[in-house]
Amino acid sequence: MKVLILGGDGYLGWPTAMYFSARGHQVTVVDNYLRRNACTELDTGMLYPVPTLPRRAAIWEARTGHKIDVIIGDLCEPEFMRSLFEQPPEVVIHYAEQPSAPYSLMDYRHADQTITNNLRVTNNLMWAVRDLAPQTHIIKLGTMGEYGTPNIDIEEGWLDIEHKGRKDRFLFPRQAGSIYHTSKIMDTDLLWFGVRTWNLRVTDLMQGPVYGIETEESRLDERLRTLFNYDEIFGTILNRFIVQAVVGYPLTVYGKGGQTRGYLNIRDTLQCVYHSAMKPARPGELRIFNQVMETFSVNELAELTQSVGRELGYEVVIQPIDNPRKEAEEHYYNPQYQGLLDMGVKPHYLTPEVMREMFSVVESCRDNIREDVIFRGIRW
Amino acid sequence: MKVLILGGDGYLGWPTAMYFSARGHQVTVVDNYLRRNACTELDTGMLYPVPTLPRRAAIWEARTGHKIDVIIGDLCEPEFMRSLFEQPPEVVIHYAEQPSAPYSLMDYRHADQTITNNLRVTNNLMWAVRDLAPQTHIIKLGTMGEYGTPNIDIEEGWLDIEHKGRKDRFLFPRQAGSIYHTSKIMDTDLLWFGVRTWNLRVTDLMQGPVYGIETEESRLDERLRTLFNYDEIFGTILNRFIVQAVVGYPLTVYGKGGQTRGYLNIRDTLQCVYHSAMKPARPGELRIFNQVMETFSVNELAELTQSVGRELGYEVVIQPIDNPRKEAEEHYYNPQYQGLLDMGVKPHYLTPEVMREMFSVVESCRDNIREDVIFRGIRW
Repeated sequence: MKVLILGGDGYLGWPTAMYFSARGHQVTVVDNYLRRNACTELDTGMLYPVPTLPRRAAIWEARTGHKIDVIIGDLCEPEFMRSLFEQPPEVVIHYAEQPSAPYSLMDYRHADQTITNNLRVTNNLMWAVRDLAPQTHIIKLGTMGEYGTPNIDIEEGWLDIEHKGRKDRFLFPRQAGSIYHTSKIMDTDLLWFGVRTWNLRVTDLMQGPVYGIETEESRLDERLRTLFNYDEIFGTILNRFIVQAVVGYPLTVYGKGGQTRGYLNIRDTLQCVYHSAMKPARPGELRIFNQVMETFSVNELAELTQSVGRELGYEVVIQPIDNPRKEAEEHYYNPQYQGLLDMGVKPHYLTPEVMREMFSVVESCRDNIREDVIFRGIRW
Repeated sequence: MKVLILGGDGYLGWPTAMYFSARGHQVTVVDNYLRRNACTELDTGMLYPVPTLPRRAAIWEARTGHKIDVIIGDLCEPEFMRSLFEQPPEVVIHYAEQPSAPYSLMDYRHADQTITNNLRVTNNLMWAVRDLAPQTHIIKLGTMGEYGTPNIDIEEGWLDIEHKGRKDRFLFPRQAGSIYHTSKIMDTDLLWFGVRTWNLRVTDLMQGPVYGIETEESRLDERLRTLFNYDEIFGTILNRFIVQAVVGYPLTVYGKGGQTRGYLNIRDTLQCVYHSAMKPARPGELRIFNQVMETFSVNELAELTQSVGRELGYEVVIQPIDNPRKEAEEHYYNPQYQGLLDMGVKPHYLTPEVMREMFSVVESCRDNIREDVIFRGIRW
């Protein structure tokens, strides 16, 4: 299968490229290094250095004999996006977005950049597929954050509504907690228009926060590891907590810590995307899955980190701080997430063993960790 | 009251400026001539020439003694937007969007331009108000098209949903029929985030298609008339039908003609915006009104035009054509629109007299009408 991965340099993009490549698919990755450059701009630090995309592709080929094609360019430019569809892929996997909520709320410039980048890329992609590759299946990474924390059960994408004796089916109501998450709602609005109007085939994966470092493929060579941030801006919560635990930096719980979300292991992201690609959406279908495997509150994640960390000999302190974000700290949260399991995904749950493995990689890179970048208090 | 009007050169922007100015308010209009330039680019024709903004402001001042300040610039540039809030206005009225559905669907470039322009302007505005003028009331022109044609009654902006025994209140579900209309959904998503997070005060007016030429203020001098398009791209349906009737061009009904929407006279747009400004939304309130005065199907508008036209001696033929759009041609449509009436708006309904007045202005400019631009068949 010919697979085009947009945003192939990112935390999820690169592991996805290797995962498909290892299974014999013809993979092309595209990126403009937005994320990498943002890390440099904001001096966020990284747990370990990550080779450029062409270098990683060369290492991958040397280790496995599989070739991954690399194209560097800015997908905000419509003509560049369209050039990628001259030989249409069977599936395009769209990760090419600015992915951080705090980044999107640093100031008006970063908000503008997030909205402009994320919306233009999605729109350019939609038109390129419409015009040049109408059979290509689009797999888009959405976020569970699009739903916010409603007081009703979160269904998988859709909701049947009865009102004054009449019925219709709608996208599940969305109201997100950041500009970044709101840009994902806008993506959904846009793709739903494209699906209805042009019979596009789209799978929208409403993903929760992802944790993890190693995947099956990265174990071949540590230079193949995905980029790993542990700062407030790009570090997802569990990844960050483990780094904090290793260096003795108190676990920063925002407010009451009752914020509950659905989480998944990076290996499950790969499975979910892979199963979605193998069984594509039909023409005219916007297929939405809630891509989480289990839910935790922030307090639960902090306690798990503390418990595994202490067992490994780390002094782990949990320190609630004033919440820099506007969010509910205690709320109802009951998302449904059966669709991907029905497709055959086998979850990797957050066991102490999984956490010990993460501690071990972080420990091995301990000298690279800069405490000064962990928390800077970006306010909503 | 200090009033800032973004998009002050447009069909609604300029009449709004005169309306507030005539009532003693201190008005500044801002525009980058996007609409005018698009009309030139696409060679759409106009019913009559329209002086530039500074020229119109000078004519207005000469006629009334009231000054309207004019600033030309691109609101996509965050720094330019922010410069307008150094002396915060009490109210900012945001019309600065690419307003045409067919334009947004001409091709990928026009889609990209629509999304980029509309979203950047709204986001820049939201941040400028957040950072520099948190008390300023934002009045935003949305569109009834955001709701699409759902099979349930359309409430004013919000819907209480009960699901599996639990309840919450959400934005009324939105699913629009064009990229332009979808950009307005995205605006709503964005502003709702800003209101929840930063206590902004926002009124979102979900406006139906507007018709009409003259307003009370434009009668002073015909050079003060608002720009009037009659082509498929920028001409709204009733305005276009009347031009078609005058030149003997068959009324182009798309498909079955059962497409029903809520409409209003341009004079009522002015009233609605004015009443909203005089009674602002509260901090932290996203106040949404459905800004229509009555509903018609396309067939009803065609028949009204034919009936008044014939009475005036025109040969008016109705000609159904293959629908170039993807839309339901027969559907349920029951919008609620009580909120603005409760605020004191007195509707101007679409009477034969109102239509005769429009016929009369169009007739007086008959020599300017170009039949070749009326229909070009932009497909969805």
